[in-house]
Amino acid sequence: MDVLKKTLNQISPIKNELKAKTQKRLDALTKPLGSLGMLEEITKDVLTITENEEYKIKKKVIFVLAGDHGVVKESVTGYPQEVTPQMVYNFVRGGAAINVLARHVDAKVVVVDMGVAADLNEASGKIINKKINYGTKNFAEDHAMSKDEAIRSIEAGIEVFEQEAKNGIDIVGCGDMGIGNTTTSSAIVAALTGAPVEQVTGRGTGIDDEMLAHKIDVIKKALAKHNPDITDPIDVLSKVGGFEIGGITGVVLAAAAHKIPILLDGFISSAGALVAYKLQPNVKDYFIASHLSVERGHQIILETFNKRPLLNLDLRLGEGTGAALAMPLVEASIKILNEMATFADAGVSERTS
Amino acid sequence: MDVLKKTLNQISPIKNELKAKTQKRLDALTKPLGSLGMLEEITKDVLTITENEEYKIKKKVIFVLAGDHGVVKESVTGYPQEVTPQMVYNFVRGGAAINVLARHVDAKVVVVDMGVAADLNEASGKIINKKINYGTKNFAEDHAMSKDEAIRSIEAGIEVFEQEAKNGIDIVGCGDMGIGNTTTSSAIVAALTGAPVEQVTGRGTGIDDEMLAHKIDVIKKALAKHNPDITDPIDVLSKVGGFEIGGITGVVLAAAAHKIPILLDGFISSAGALVAYKLQPNVKDYFIASHLSVERGHQIILETFNKRPLLNLDLRLGEGTGAALAMPLVEASIKILNEMATFADAGVSERTS
Repeated sequence: MDVLKKTLNQISPIKNELKAKTQKRLDALTKPLGSLGMLEEITKDVLTITENEEYKIKKKVIFVLAGDHGVVKESVTGYPQEVTPQMVYNFVRGGAAINVLARHVDAKVVVVDMGVAADLNEASGKIINKKINYGTKNFAEDHAMSKDEAIRSIEAGIEVFEQEAKNGIDIVGCGDMGIGNTTTSSAIVAALTGAPVEQVTGRGTGIDDEMLAHKIDVIKKALAKHNPDITDPIDVLSKVGGFEIGGITGVVLAAAAHKIPILLDGFISSAGALVAYKLQPNVKDYFIASHLSVERGHQIILETFNKRPLLNLDLRLGEGTGAALAMPLVEASIKILNEMATFADAGVSERTS
Repeated sequence: MDVLKKTLNQISPIKNELKAKTQKRLDALTKPLGSLGMLEEITKDVLTITENEEYKIKKKVIFVLAGDHGVVKESVTGYPQEVTPQMVYNFVRGGAAINVLARHVDAKVVVVDMGVAADLNEASGKIINKKINYGTKNFAEDHAMSKDEAIRSIEAGIEVFEQEAKNGIDIVGCGDMGIGNTTTSSAIVAALTGAPVEQVTGRGTGIDDEMLAHKIDVIKKALAKHNPDITDPIDVLSKVGGFEIGGITGVVLAAAAHKIPILLDGFISSAGALVAYKLQPNVKDYFIASHLSVERGHQIILETFNKRPLLNLDLRLGEGTGAALAMPLVEASIKILNEMATFADAGVSERTS
């Protein structure tokens, strides 16, 4: 608990006055005022988050946190649980979508076993072992994890970030892998936002109407049974959460404590960020929304954060793929400020009316 | 006219059957079916356009075509005409937004003087001189250009593309520079789509309500005065068009003839693409919409092409900036197909329900 408390205390509100200062610099560049739209907003966000007028994005890191979910026993997903470790091996070998996209944007992928329901021997040395347990319990029957496990999962995420930060991190993306984790995330989001379960529950990897109705029913019954304290995100995480989601919460909190911009990925990683936000509301000022997922609960989380996504490409894959795709846009925003000529430098006339 | 006719004849309809074949390949990759959304659509578009199952995007080229507009005499824009050559010099020196973004995405910028109202001596050797004339005539009084000039501007665009194609082009973006060219583009789009002038006329570089009302009035009167033949895009281009817009039409037609994917930029370059589409409707199958501009007429052009933009970032700068920003997304789409592991390769279980 000490690691978590310390990290929460290190997260300060951003200094909004830095935004106006950056806008003045943007307005001196050879382009009509405001004509780069959201790129200019992102430039201001990054300089305000980092408190560094000369910020450059070089070291890009995407954490992919993996865990299993006991609730898969309730037939809420189309894929068998064995896919979680199989995909972790795929990450390690570089064949998954996140590997392709991270190579494309020159980002490092850090794979973390937060609680996969299998020993990952083959991958030893190539993944960080923070296994809290062999998957969560089935929250249709039991609490997903103990409160102690919930706290340890968040602290493991903090530790993973702190370890990687020694190599330098200029921007961070969070991704997830865990069969069943849209069910878990929907339960967390319903509890923490008060939104009806139907409004935050989608088709995950692509289930049909019948399975979707069943998934909603499973979540509703679990929330009624466990009655999580909606003012206590740790209680929500322990009753209906997942280890990788707690890990994402930890990474997000640690990044904010370090004043590093955080690119939210899709529904799962935003659910982890929502837990972080409920622990420390200032953390949302460090978020940049990379994309809007097809998974319907994502919109509600982004509205809670008051964030507009950079991309809207009907993605629903997770793994940090949306965060990776948005990284070049954030880099572009910073390069505009660092590399464009001013009206004075270029001898270009300013507007006359 | 021979060059134009020959190019129009070389543009064939795409082979839609290649899309289904590519989707099968995408469905074998280690991700839920369809979970990469629009990226998968772009993968299919590029392989269908290029008719090459092994396509790789290496040589990226952004053509920035510049020209001046006599209609600036009607006070339709906030910037003086001298900004056009000043910005061309800025492009040549590498200080403009398009230079920064092209460097960021590793694209080559090819700057073309299509009809700037000044001699660009300083930039000689670094820009391609295809000057049709020293700016168009004021279309509030006269035809913007002769029919011969309209055809020559399109053919100049074709020649510029053909010349650069000798070095290899795997994807092309089109950008523009020309003070007054949103006024010109709005007139073209109103004529060629039949949309009311109010619906396709926006604030350009940022004019106020009064100037916007005046801009709309100038366009309406010019269309009434010249009564362009809406079934003849050359007539429309000559009466209310611009040299850089004709050049863009030519680049777009030549790229389609070469089966190279074309990333549309914003309102001006899409207006040039609209002229191309009216000359040869098949050309639209070679388009990828990079972004949706703030400039209101852009949406109507994209609807005419039935294209969904990859980005929606409130950009309104032109120069090819939106096309540059979207290039990494198109590259990502292709790398997904070329680099991801299949379920069989990676030993990952497929879905069970």
